Amino acid sequence: MNNFNYYNPCKIVFGDDVEKEIGQNCLDLNVKKVLLHYGGGSIKKNGLYEKVIASLKASNIQYVELAGVKPNPRLELVREGIAICKKENVDLVLAVGGGSVIDSAKAIACGFYVEDIWEYYLDSSKVLEKALPLGVVLTIPAAGSETSSSSVITEEATNLKRSAGTKHMIAKFAIMNPKNTYSLPDNQIAYGVSDMFAHIMERYFSQTTGVDLGDRLLEANMKNILRIAPLVFNDKENYTLRAEIMWAGTLAHNGILGMGRDEDWASHLIEHELSGEYDIPHGLGLAIVFPAWMKYVCKDNMPRFTQFASRVFGIEYAHDNGEYAVSEAIKAMENFYKSIGLHTRLSDISINADKFDVMAERLFFKRGTTVGQFKKLNKADAVNIFNLAK
Amino acid sequence: MNNFNYYNPCKIVFGDDVEKEIGQNCLDLNVKKVLLHYGGGSIKKNGLYEKVIASLKASNIQYVELAGVKPNPRLELVREGIAICKKENVDLVLAVGGGSVIDSAKAIACGFYVEDIWEYYLDSSKVLEKALPLGVVLTIPAAGSETSSSSVITEEATNLKRSAGTKHMIAKFAIMNPKNTYSLPDNQIAYGVSDMFAHIMERYFSQTTGVDLGDRLLEANMKNILRIAPLVFNDKENYTLRAEIMWAGTLAHNGILGMGRDEDWASHLIEHELSGEYDIPHGLGLAIVFPAWMKYVCKDNMPRFTQFASRVFGIEYAHDNGEYAVSEAIKAMENFYKSIGLHTRLSDISINADKFDVMAERLFFKRGTTVGQFKKLNKADAVNIFNLAK
Repeated sequence: MNNFNYYNPCKIVFGDDVEKEIGQNCLDLNVKKVLLHYGGGSIKKNGLYEKVIASLKASNIQYVELAGVKPNPRLELVREGIAICKKENVDLVLAVGGGSVIDSAKAIACGFYVEDIWEYYLDSSKVLEKALPLGVVLTIPAAGSETSSSSVITEEATNLKRSAGTKHMIAKFAIMNPKNTYSLPDNQIAYGVSDMFAHIMERYFSQTTGVDLGDRLLEANMKNILRIAPLVFNDKENYTLRAEIMWAGTLAHNGILGMGRDEDWASHLIEHELSGEYDIPHGLGLAIVFPAWMKYVCKDNMPRFTQFASRVFGIEYAHDNGEYAVSEAIKAMENFYKSIGLHTRLSDISINADKFDVMAERLFFKRGTTVGQFKKLNKADAVNIFNLAK
Repeated sequence: MNNFNYYNPCKIVFGDDVEKEIGQNCLDLNVKKVLLHYGGGSIKKNGLYEKVIASLKASNIQYVELAGVKPNPRLELVREGIAICKKENVDLVLAVGGGSVIDSAKAIACGFYVEDIWEYYLDSSKVLEKALPLGVVLTIPAAGSETSSSSVITEEATNLKRSAGTKHMIAKFAIMNPKNTYSLPDNQIAYGVSDMFAHIMERYFSQTTGVDLGDRLLEANMKNILRIAPLVFNDKENYTLRAEIMWAGTLAHNGILGMGRDEDWASHLIEHELSGEYDIPHGLGLAIVFPAWMKYVCKDNMPRFTQFASRVFGIEYAHDNGEYAVSEAIKAMENFYKSIGLHTRLSDISINADKFDVMAERLFFKRGTTVGQFKKLNKADAVNIFNLAK
């Protein structure tokens, strides 16, 4: 087990009807004015917008609004948000939405205190020392951004999709009502499930030894996601299922299940090139990249992959034939993705090999010569993985 | 799943050689003077004391000392600690030890701001609003008190052993070096293992439904403890095993694995009467009380107990004979306790039935008429459980 620090001071307020606590949570932080940041307006259709406003008003919290966050959130809107916060003397950014809205809000909150926030996304060695406080009202069980310390932003002009992280990006509070996910379209749920499953696997596939407790906790979350995910589509207002999947997404990415180990994250970085180039949903891209990554790297630690096959997918196999187990597990994972409506090949979404080199090149823009920890991958490896995902 | 709040802002600094970060963590909190609180002096024998002092001195942190915490920590020493903190203008209580030292430190930290800290232990409806900041240097993988929000104290004159809880009892930082457990005697490890296993079971045995993710996470921790615990005794300087068991104890009680469910805690309360009366180690008492409690309550939710039998102990059974599975699981648990050197019956430690009524009576002193949530137990039930533990 590696040495580690764990610090996550986000206050999670989880359950039915918890939106009414938004205002009080702002007051507890001595907040007077918030930037209400959200996406395309679905929160106005499902009634959440009114609940948020009502809670703010009940606590005499002022607010200004910035809507329009898209999936793969854009730098331009972040810059707009920073300008509003400065002009309006905002003292908390309140993200109402899913991972994209939260990531955009994190960039705004940190950008408030630096000259050019994009520099910190381009160069991971630059340290963000301060941020406006952040509050979250979560609407999508997915990214885990509600309690995580990182954010991903895309610059539209260059198709660069980059991440930044700092403890100052951890939300002060996260308001999580599973009922706010009832009105989500099926594909959003599926993308979210793929994202949370990937967050767990990025931790699980590690070369660090002596982390059996972490392994088992991560397996517990994966097994439960495999069980629940197919059920949530046919039973859209089942509170229990929505609560379990929402909590699963948070635990997948708040850090505590994966302490003490090297994490990988190559699949995420490779996927960012796909969604940066083609503007496909991140969760869809992960369902395509991850199986290809697994096929490419599994020989670098077969016991870890056979453990995954055996414990997560229940594959029974002759122990002198680990290849069979791993192959069956990858098939089972692809079938799982398909069962929730996702594609698992680039050809399924009409992406051909034209840009493989461009994406592999950009993967290393200002980023050294390898990505990933489980197996350090160079540009040629990235192209090979794109080819396995064809 | 129940509505819940989760908030745990303790900064965990885990790994080899992390004692050197104590001073900086005090500085980060603007601390000038600490009360160094510890037990019987084992930290002077194993070299930890010098490391703590060196780190404090390196950061120019002043300190006063209060040693002498015993297992089942006493109110009198708490009062002494409060007086020292007031007299010496201490601004952080630094607990260097296991659960008893930490619990004593929590009582001192909260007692600094109230007239009589014991009132808050006697009456759980009284709310502690403030505390001195608390830092922990953990030496025993056991109680989980290093990140928990509660504390248990005993008043010697009355044998009353009572608990209190508040978010202000959560340590600001916990310094956890697995090597500091190398010199522990075997029985201390065994008591610690029993305590952490019990902390998980108090959460696991719940009547709340729709908490499958929590179930699986708790099972993961239990399964790993069952695997590791017997190994740590024969391999005392195996860093990996010590790291895993230390982290298991923290995760057993920091709260996050058991969110969204009613927790039980009857076994803990019943055990507190035993250790309050006879001054036996808490972990030993739990190994005696818990199997008896299970025998007494299992019929109130057989599916939960058969799930425990099947998933945690791997009991295979005909599904029309759940009684067999549960009986085998309880036997397996008792064998586990015995395998690590613990007793599982009161008669094994020469406790007879003389005080069963006295203890059952005192269990309800200022505490209503029932304890526990899985099955609400009255005085007669408590006596029955003592009898099952004979």
